[in-house]
Amino acid sequence: MTATAPHLLAAHRQLLAGTTLAELFARDPDRFARLSFAWDGWLVDLSKERVGADTLPLLVAQAMAAGLPGWIAALFAGEKVNQSERRPALHTALRRPGDAPLLVDGHDIIPDIRAALSRMRTLAAQVRAGLRVGATGRPIRAVVNLGIGGSDLGPLLVCSALAPPPRARASTGPQTQGVDVSFVANVDPEHLTRALAPLDPATTLFIVTSKTFTTQETLANAASAKAWLVAALGKGVDVNSHFVAVTGNSAAARAFGTASADVFPLWDWVGGRYSLWSPAGLPIALKLGFERFEKLLAGAASVDTHFREEPLERNLPVLLGLVGWWNATQLGHAERVVVPYAQALFRLPAYLQQLVLESNGKRVGRDGGALTGPTSAALWGEAGTNGQHAFFQWLHQGTREAPVEFIVPITATHPLANQQTLLIANALAQAQALLVGRSPEAIRTELLARGMTAADLDAAVAARTCPGNRASTMLLMPELSSYRLGQLLALYEHRTFVEAVLYGINPFDQFGVELGKTLAGPIVAALAGAAVLPPGTDASTRGLVAHVLAQPGLTGR
Amino acid sequence: MTATAPHLLAAHRQLLAGTTLAELFARDPDRFARLSFAWDGWLVDLSKERVGADTLPLLVAQAMAAGLPGWIAALFAGEKVNQSERRPALHTALRRPGDAPLLVDGHDIIPDIRAALSRMRTLAAQVRAGLRVGATGRPIRAVVNLGIGGSDLGPLLVCSALAPPPRARASTGPQTQGVDVSFVANVDPEHLTRALAPLDPATTLFIVTSKTFTTQETLANAASAKAWLVAALGKGVDVNSHFVAVTGNSAAARAFGTASADVFPLWDWVGGRYSLWSPAGLPIALKLGFERFEKLLAGAASVDTHFREEPLERNLPVLLGLVGWWNATQLGHAERVVVPYAQALFRLPAYLQQLVLESNGKRVGRDGGALTGPTSAALWGEAGTNGQHAFFQWLHQGTREAPVEFIVPITATHPLANQQTLLIANALAQAQALLVGRSPEAIRTELLARGMTAADLDAAVAARTCPGNRASTMLLMPELSSYRLGQLLALYEHRTFVEAVLYGINPFDQFGVELGKTLAGPIVAALAGAAVLPPGTDASTRGLVAHVLAQPGLTGR
Repeated sequence: MTATAPHLLAAHRQLLAGTTLAELFARDPDRFARLSFAWDGWLVDLSKERVGADTLPLLVAQAMAAGLPGWIAALFAGEKVNQSERRPALHTALRRPGDAPLLVDGHDIIPDIRAALSRMRTLAAQVRAGLRVGATGRPIRAVVNLGIGGSDLGPLLVCSALAPPPRARASTGPQTQGVDVSFVANVDPEHLTRALAPLDPATTLFIVTSKTFTTQETLANAASAKAWLVAALGKGVDVNSHFVAVTGNSAAARAFGTASADVFPLWDWVGGRYSLWSPAGLPIALKLGFERFEKLLAGAASVDTHFREEPLERNLPVLLGLVGWWNATQLGHAERVVVPYAQALFRLPAYLQQLVLESNGKRVGRDGGALTGPTSAALWGEAGTNGQHAFFQWLHQGTREAPVEFIVPITATHPLANQQTLLIANALAQAQALLVGRSPEAIRTELLARGMTAADLDAAVAARTCPGNRASTMLLMPELSSYRLGQLLALYEHRTFVEAVLYGINPFDQFGVELGKTLAGPIVAALAGAAVLPPGTDASTRGLVAHVLAQPGLTGR
Repeated sequence: MTATAPHLLAAHRQLLAGTTLAELFARDPDRFARLSFAWDGWLVDLSKERVGADTLPLLVAQAMAAGLPGWIAALFAGEKVNQSERRPALHTALRRPGDAPLLVDGHDIIPDIRAALSRMRTLAAQVRAGLRVGATGRPIRAVVNLGIGGSDLGPLLVCSALAPPPRARASTGPQTQGVDVSFVANVDPEHLTRALAPLDPATTLFIVTSKTFTTQETLANAASAKAWLVAALGKGVDVNSHFVAVTGNSAAARAFGTASADVFPLWDWVGGRYSLWSPAGLPIALKLGFERFEKLLAGAASVDTHFREEPLERNLPVLLGLVGWWNATQLGHAERVVVPYAQALFRLPAYLQQLVLESNGKRVGRDGGALTGPTSAALWGEAGTNGQHAFFQWLHQGTREAPVEFIVPITATHPLANQQTLLIANALAQAQALLVGRSPEAIRTELLARGMTAADLDAAVAARTCPGNRASTMLLMPELSSYRLGQLLALYEHRTFVEAVLYGINPFDQFGVELGKTLAGPIVAALAGAAVLPPGTDASTRGLVAHVLAQPGLTGR
């Protein structure tokens, strides 16, 4: 990777290392104005990150040297930016307005996308109107999504973020539109068992989403779901109308029994963790209606345009990605903490874990060469204010700094006004606390005023001191609507791509997940008593298998 | 802190640094037997952690030098191990069998505990039998827990881990025992709004849990809950029978309107994150029945005895804590990843985040002196197998090593036997994959056999190579019952204490969370238009407040 001369970055880093964030604010009265970026109702405030006024130009130069503008163009043009799998990564095509052709290996994919979206619209309308019926002729009222990873986390996030509250049990009016949508990912049968317990087989539809239609968790759950239907509806009954498939392997889906009209495409030019915009987003359209799914797409498309057209210096995903790269590689932060101040986004960190860590948890460059520096930091978090009562102690007084990303939708959709003010104030106050800390002098004064005796004072002051000088980013979004959520997710998709370009890696493959699947095979056979472990298996794996086999109650043998 | 001579540890670390885990296995055929520890049906396998056969004795010596046996005795005896707040930390008293006195400031707390448990038993029995009625005389059918942090995460974890599947909607038999229990923590009013939507005010009971009865989130939600009841049941109706309080400030609870008989104690000798064993565990008793709550306590008590009596060399929480300290301070790992292979435990990482990071995210010693080394690593995770499709790519091929803790209940409670085998096999296979990796040579052979041409081979091999040599701990537990879950949680409580002793910190205070609360006050006032921000407020906080105030749709002004 060509790049800004490393000594420039290192010298700059050194310069900042001796300076606190508070000093940076003191030095430059325009720091907030200079380092906060408004766009389309959003405000992204980078002024509390450990960057000087001259850091961003240096990072932009780094991005130019890494060829970022060319990579952005290549991404949208459908070039094979996923080199190791020789595929384009065209999640942006799924939300692109207009009918201008987009060729993949000489084939225009836009009509395919339009056709798939149209079929999604039809299915969503049918199910929501009670016109889709199961084997007994009764209308479908509940949908269970069977999928894992990208076939689970994205649709689940959107459904839980945007779902209206469930209808009041006390209401006695006519049944309104809308279906109950739940998600089952884990191969742990407890997951499926719990999801099915409240459901009526006669009115339940399953969506089976798997690009290959071989994903072990999803296919195991699909088989168990079919058995549940047959057990309830009778052996002679054809339960295939209770299944819809989303897959790139339509032959396998049809072999499972799904009617051709119920098989939706999942193309190889869209990765699982980027697939919620595709038919993998069917649960969204079913739960919220196709119109809200379209608004989600439109929001993402607006960020796509921004990402393609805005100069790097004012380009939000670029700026976020540059600071992320700076934190992870130049400042050496091992992690990023994401805290959405919105209970509806409580699964956003789990979604972002897949997006970011599966994309940028790599250790070789695009050409297969070893990298010299680190790649993605870890990413975790919980909703605020909940996190304040869990891990914020560690953020404020632990010995390790982890930059925090605060995500705050401003306008509430509910009537409890004073609590919304508390929510937003807490987000701003926590970011402020990380920045300014609380000095021993201030605490000493306060404790003396409260009458603490000198004997206890020193330890009490030390226990209460917060060093501050800890970095954070604040993202203020106007509200949590379909459109704005689409923007948020596209912002994070593109910033992840920006970081990948700077790391010099391919964010669109995930070969690291294959080994575990391969190794599971012999262990399954050993636990089932069908085979012994291969020679050369390590002593720990052998010992653990022996322990499991010795348990009296293991189900499955 | 007195301790093993640092040069001994450093020399030992150096010795291991040049050695892979695979080499450690190759050198010592008894490694698994030596480094895996069985107790009461559990197996804790430390053989895949980066320790040699002689590391554990060195760590035990470190623990002895830090006075661990004395600290354990002090913890159980009710000495004021929470020095900064001059309190004991007596969560173990809550589950201690027998009536032997335990004095806190000369007062025997055991009768208080017995009385509180007895009242919990009575309330649980009444509610579950439909004998507790609301203001309109109808029996309570739903319970909403209002609490945050320790008043939320522990009870929520236990209820979601152990809850039976909801009753089938199709069932038409007589109403069975058991109540619907939900949890609202966030000050975000969306949380409460969604929880209340399906509930009938006439049959809903709220538990308000707050040690001080001033927790802003909880009191705001309690006020909103009361308004919801009054709006539905009528202004003249006394809705106080719809509230139960768990608090150390009974006067405030009574002032809120709660009847004395409905106020349960929360003592100052139990910290929030250790309080699920106290009346803060009421939601557990209400949802699962008091008998299962008692089994939870009994499980924890069995680990308490083990922790007190077992020699350090075979003491599970001690061993786990020693390895955790070794990883965090000597090997420099910035994080721990916890992956329970049980969907029912999907909120365990969130619970452990509070337990571990609020306890051990500290930067000064017990005496207030600055520490020389790091304290707790970060902790995060998700349920397996889900995590395999999200962040395991990063674990296997990222540039940063994060030790993984696999937690695997063996025996399933459901009938889908083959899926349980898959679940366990996946856990063992992932740990194996982290250990052994996948060499370039093996991949090259495989790809050549599959017909890949030489031109593509090098990059393809590099993309698929997994370095292995990454550490993990495996905890096999017999099953996920009340008793076993109590054991699991007590194991993690005590290992957290062990790490604190080695860090030389007080794990029982949390002064770092105060600053943010203090700073929120002026921001709330500014957002409400009631005041301007104090002079000296940083430019970022000012700018963000101004942006929020400029939004057209902010609720709350």
